[in-house]
Amino acid sequence: MKRVTIIGLGLMGGSLGLALRQAGLAEHIVGCGRPELQRRAIEMSAIDSGCTDVVESVAGSDFVFLCTPVETSIALLQRIAPHLSPEALVTDVGSTKSAFAAAAREIFGPSANQRVLPGHPLAGREVSGLEHAVADLYTNCVWVLTPLRDDAGGDAGHAAPIASHRALHSALQTIGARVVFTTPEEHDRTLAYTSHLPQMLSTVLALTLEQAFGAGNPALQIHAGGLRDMLRLARSEPSMWEQIATSNRQNLAEAMQRMEAELKAFRESLGSPEFRTKFEEAREFAKFLKG
Amino acid sequence: MKRVTIIGLGLMGGSLGLALRQAGLAEHIVGCGRPELQRRAIEMSAIDSGCTDVVESVAGSDFVFLCTPVETSIALLQRIAPHLSPEALVTDVGSTKSAFAAAAREIFGPSANQRVLPGHPLAGREVSGLEHAVADLYTNCVWVLTPLRDDAGGDAGHAAPIASHRALHSALQTIGARVVFTTPEEHDRTLAYTSHLPQMLSTVLALTLEQAFGAGNPALQIHAGGLRDMLRLARSEPSMWEQIATSNRQNLAEAMQRMEAELKAFRESLGSPEFRTKFEEAREFAKFLKG
Repeated sequence: MKRVTIIGLGLMGGSLGLALRQAGLAEHIVGCGRPELQRRAIEMSAIDSGCTDVVESVAGSDFVFLCTPVETSIALLQRIAPHLSPEALVTDVGSTKSAFAAAAREIFGPSANQRVLPGHPLAGREVSGLEHAVADLYTNCVWVLTPLRDDAGGDAGHAAPIASHRALHSALQTIGARVVFTTPEEHDRTLAYTSHLPQMLSTVLALTLEQAFGAGNPALQIHAGGLRDMLRLARSEPSMWEQIATSNRQNLAEAMQRMEAELKAFRESLGSPEFRTKFEEAREFAKFLKG
Repeated sequence: MKRVTIIGLGLMGGSLGLALRQAGLAEHIVGCGRPELQRRAIEMSAIDSGCTDVVESVAGSDFVFLCTPVETSIALLQRIAPHLSPEALVTDVGSTKSAFAAAAREIFGPSANQRVLPGHPLAGREVSGLEHAVADLYTNCVWVLTPLRDDAGGDAGHAAPIASHRALHSALQTIGARVVFTTPEEHDRTLAYTSHLPQMLSTVLALTLEQAFGAGNPALQIHAGGLRDMLRLARSEPSMWEQIATSNRQNLAEAMQRMEAELKAFRESLGSPEFRTKFEEAREFAKFLKG
């Protein structure tokens, strides 16, 4: 990678700059964001130079990372599209992929697969902002790439033989990410269950406790580490989740509805032998997933 | 404490022995359990001597800790009652308190409050067994004591002025526990929300994922730390939770039902401004609880 542009200098963008620099993967990194963030990112050595104008920031870059929430990334893609070098590859880090993929297809038409490779590093934390950026945020993290289906209907489940795609794939592996390929649609359905549903459960658990006790109730001191684990996600950033819940609404609603039905069935099994069977089945699954 | 008996040499009983010894709180600790556990507990210095017979093990002891699951502790209480020294105080570590309290009232009648002080250290882990016992298991853990309402209808929310109660309270504080008093009934209602409901959610989340994907589905590799946190409790011991779910069934069913209703309402708020309001409310609550 010669010239890389990172648009959005928060936890994700800042950490990406630090990781690319540390691995010596880019000759020059331009960071686009508010002036004080540019300054701070240069001080941290996350970027080499700063730029306030998005159009200007992508000039001459061969890789552009959109490190902003989904809706913002879609607007930015539209904005920068006419100004990209024809060989440039754009990728993003958004939590849902279908809407971004649809926008890319619409903007670039038949060359969308060539120009854009949507991505999603599963490295979110309950904190955000450049001040929490670290060079190893992506070490061992799953980084999903969702190639856009090309006109010939090629297998989107595997990286197309496009040089810039291979270069991105290899760079992500170099910074320690475990790259997984899938389609934008399959990504969103999977994440509804493995990420968005757990978030909603944590949030709704907090609401349920508040409703049953009232926030300041001293009885709530009677709790242990298990509850704190289950409420960790509830401390996440609301604006990010508002966007995710909106852009993946249908999949998420389906996952939540399924959970509601399973919860009801499990409640009805309390005190019956089925409870034990289900409990053990869940235990095996959780152990398997832990690996 | 002169002579202490610990019945049940698992994670809880073993850790208690180690903590009492380390703090120099007991002159002699008798451990009751299977012969190989006695041997191992003596080697670890968790107990001074072992005993296989429960009746024999309580002879001459001034404090008896029942470190077994709820149903076993009830049966043991019945068994040892006629053989206790009249000054002895019995306590337990069971996860629910109403059933044990009712048994104590039935066995000891008007002197129940004098003879038994039910307890519950919130120090469970997803592991169990003497091999995981550690001296600091109870450091900073909430240890609930639920005095039995005496005949005069005294305030059960506070420790009665009974010397053995004070001695137990002080010993628990010495080993680092944060002692909290409440009634057996209030304990069970609270725990249904702060401990049993989170456990059921974790278990049901695993069931929902398994149902949606099938256990070995490679799509499941697309997950992050948030899911692993939310599935940690699902790896807990089934037999223990079967007993808890049975002995606290009514409270737990109520908590689950409330959660189901909240989950449905939250699902219906997806994409509406109410989502953001609820999300922020939950976030404040979760932050408050973290302290």
